[in-house]
Amino acid sequence: MIQKLTTEERATELAQLKGWQVVKDRDAIQRKLQFADFNEAFGFMTRVAIKAQEMDHHPEWFNVYNKVEITLSTHEANGLTARDIKLASFIDSITA
Amino acid sequence: MIQKLTTEERATELAQLKGWQVVKDRDAIQRKLQFADFNEAFGFMTRVAIKAQEMDHHPEWFNVYNKVEITLSTHEANGLTARDIKLASFIDSITA
Repeated sequence: MIQKLTTEERATELAQLKGWQVVKDRDAIQRKLQFADFNEAFGFMTRVAIKAQEMDHHPEWFNVYNKVEITLSTHEANGLTARDIKLASFIDSITA
Repeated sequence: MIQKLTTEERATELAQLKGWQVVKDRDAIQRKLQFADFNEAFGFMTRVAIKAQEMDHHPEWFNVYNKVEITLSTHEANGLTARDIKLASFIDSITA
């Protein structure tokens, strides 16, 4: 069973991510992204989907046209874990 | 400029769709779908994305794991138009 990040781990890990906000009232992080158009936004989502499937760790996300809002949290731990940081880092790496 | 559906058109067209609900406080329709898993849900989204791009008419949608919630409305008409019905019918046809 995967464990939630400790307070120290959260501080260290979150500081290394780009543009992620801690969600209010929930132990989760969110990032809002904007692309040139739908083609680019859905292309990004497809890259994340393939990575998520490989990791067996999936995002919650909303898309409208060129905008994508992604929320990450680990259901089985009821909060943020190393899996969320790993997926967030991947997302950061493909949106550099 | 595309026009909103008339009251008569709405009644006729909406009656032919499957499982779509009229959204409260907004001239839009929504359908909630559930799939076997993320692979199937995202496969469905990819088919809709390709169709949406072809139509130049895009959904607002939310996905978490095997669930997809799709909202359709036509931004430039500020409400439901024939484009929404066409995309909704396509969605119905691939989820039969």
